Amino acid sequence: MHVPHLLGDSFICEPPKILDLEGGFRFHHGDLVAPFTIVYETYGELAADRSNAVLVCHALSPGPHVAGRYSRDDAKPGWWDGMVGYGKGIDLAQHFVVCVNFPGSPWGSTAPNSMNPATGRPYGSTYPWFAVEDMVESQRIVAEHLGISRWKAVAGSSLGGMQALMWAAMHPERVGALICMAAAAAVPVTGVAWHLIGRKLVESDPAFHRGDYYDAAPGSDAMLRGLQLARMVGHMTYLSGAAMEAKFGRRRRGGTRQFEVDSYLEYQGQKFATTYDANSYIRGQAAMDEMDLTEQFGSLEAAFAKFRGATLLVSFDTDWLFPATEIGRLSDHMRRAGVPVHHLAISTPNGHDAFLLDYPLIVPAVRELLERA
Amino acid sequence: MHVPHLLGDSFICEPPKILDLEGGFRFHHGDLVAPFTIVYETYGELAADRSNAVLVCHALSPGPHVAGRYSRDDAKPGWWDGMVGYGKGIDLAQHFVVCVNFPGSPWGSTAPNSMNPATGRPYGSTYPWFAVEDMVESQRIVAEHLGISRWKAVAGSSLGGMQALMWAAMHPERVGALICMAAAAAVPVTGVAWHLIGRKLVESDPAFHRGDYYDAAPGSDAMLRGLQLARMVGHMTYLSGAAMEAKFGRRRRGGTRQFEVDSYLEYQGQKFATTYDANSYIRGQAAMDEMDLTEQFGSLEAAFAKFRGATLLVSFDTDWLFPATEIGRLSDHMRRAGVPVHHLAISTPNGHDAFLLDYPLIVPAVRELLERA
Repeated sequence: MHVPHLLGDSFICEPPKILDLEGGFRFHHGDLVAPFTIVYETYGELAADRSNAVLVCHALSPGPHVAGRYSRDDAKPGWWDGMVGYGKGIDLAQHFVVCVNFPGSPWGSTAPNSMNPATGRPYGSTYPWFAVEDMVESQRIVAEHLGISRWKAVAGSSLGGMQALMWAAMHPERVGALICMAAAAAVPVTGVAWHLIGRKLVESDPAFHRGDYYDAAPGSDAMLRGLQLARMVGHMTYLSGAAMEAKFGRRRRGGTRQFEVDSYLEYQGQKFATTYDANSYIRGQAAMDEMDLTEQFGSLEAAFAKFRGATLLVSFDTDWLFPATEIGRLSDHMRRAGVPVHHLAISTPNGHDAFLLDYPLIVPAVRELLERA
Repeated sequence: MHVPHLLGDSFICEPPKILDLEGGFRFHHGDLVAPFTIVYETYGELAADRSNAVLVCHALSPGPHVAGRYSRDDAKPGWWDGMVGYGKGIDLAQHFVVCVNFPGSPWGSTAPNSMNPATGRPYGSTYPWFAVEDMVESQRIVAEHLGISRWKAVAGSSLGGMQALMWAAMHPERVGALICMAAAAAVPVTGVAWHLIGRKLVESDPAFHRGDYYDAAPGSDAMLRGLQLARMVGHMTYLSGAAMEAKFGRRRRGGTRQFEVDSYLEYQGQKFATTYDANSYIRGQAAMDEMDLTEQFGSLEAAFAKFRGATLLVSFDTDWLFPATEIGRLSDHMRRAGVPVHHLAISTPNGHDAFLLDYPLIVPAVRELLERA
């Protein structure tokens, strides 16, 4: 039996794993990038019959480090440590969790900031504009590598939730159950518009050099102001008005006239722009915006016609990007397609990011779904 | 008796009027700009006893041209032509309407893009950062010039509504009635944050040259991309998600993959950035953000302690900038101060801009208030 190394409320996890594709990765739109590295992480133990594997799909900003700490000194656990762990919503005492860093994300897999061995320079502007289908394909490759022919469940939030929906539509027989939070089968127009504005902010920064900015801004401290501004816009769309009132109101920084919200947004934008890659950011948002299961399959009923997995959709009433009404609409269509759907509509001041915060409200429903699956 | 030149649903108005202040204009924060020109417009006829004057305060983007057309060939009437006119909400058959272009706005009054006679160059970065108090003071100067010691009513929406509230607080005895739409006694933190982001977008444009961009971008076709982007952000905050769904959804421009909302926002941003002045924009938004009657008077009850005019507050349930809850809160405080307030809470998909669109829903309440006043 596997003995987890518990560490307070979290645990010691294994380091990221690497899968090298010598033949490269063929993108949905036709481009081939070779060689290609896929980085992924796993947690818990795969059952002998491989029936307990849960795929967690990460969103735009985070990477494959879902839960746990790499060592005792690790400052922070993974991004969904409140959901995934021993005794938690996705209980590692029973489940084997896999998270794959999607192609184009800068957290390990081959991405726009990776060196192109053919040129000796980062791919930059030449890196393909990827699609949600590519994220699913990279996860399918890892599943095959691990000998997992069917996921007990596929779970995700935001862009991760969109990938989970894409799994159910593309590979219905390989998905036992579906957990999708703060996401829908397409981004509603408001989110599309904010993404487009963010992308224009990145592209308007002269230092971006149309994507080939790696030489111009070398060193780990380099930061594109355009990406920082784009993230400030993005961060606004993740918050609710009520949460901003409670957190900042119109308060000023001590002894100055600067609004507290101003320094908070600058800080959040800077933190992001010094660690994330601008080419990954604009491509990842474009992938979100381009996904549209209605357009792709003709209707949502057609998209989910063959899927029968127990499904949990979670919406948050202060989410601007994926409003609860939109997720309610998805729920209706899936039900009409014959999918057993539970739509958990949560009231919270925490906006789009509630899936990272409101664990007491979402964990019970996740546990219940996995017990049934 | 005055015979209006009616023109379809509108009328022929007089050209803008000019008031030259030889001694200049002393700004609230101490700066003097001299000489200084104030441009204003008037509609209808001032009664012999000067009891029928209504001050309309304009918002950030529009100017003093409230209603009517300058000539038969004029493509568009003034910005509040649905409210102000013969037989309309503010009926010119009974009222004399005044609108003053506030100091710093680029529609005629001396502004950052005006020539500084002392240097032979536009004021640019040297133009003062003005306050809502300056808008009120310019209106007070015009009232004095016209011999109007008391307004029958002061009306405005958005930044114009904030000026109306400032009038009631600064000159309570000079305001007979108050009409304030989509505005409050301070901008809530969400709006402050969007304004700050917009300002950063303007200032991040290298072509802005810290405000002294007039030489660098000469000619009427010149446009700052930073201002265009800021306006796209601003425009988003004026719309509701429901209106965007209805107007655009996820539709693409015929034969292309470009989202319709993308070309709409680019167009709106361009239209604004080719006609409005960037220095005026960032200063006007800062003036909005800095106004805070609670901070200034200690409490809203204190701010309105001496005001007794009949008051109409109008809120729109899809307004992100001034949520109905915030206007409800203002209404409660004013009532506690002893002001007779009617809060008209309107349900509409039209967002912040509903005051320019939902005339059937707001005109009756305005007429009723003016009949009582």
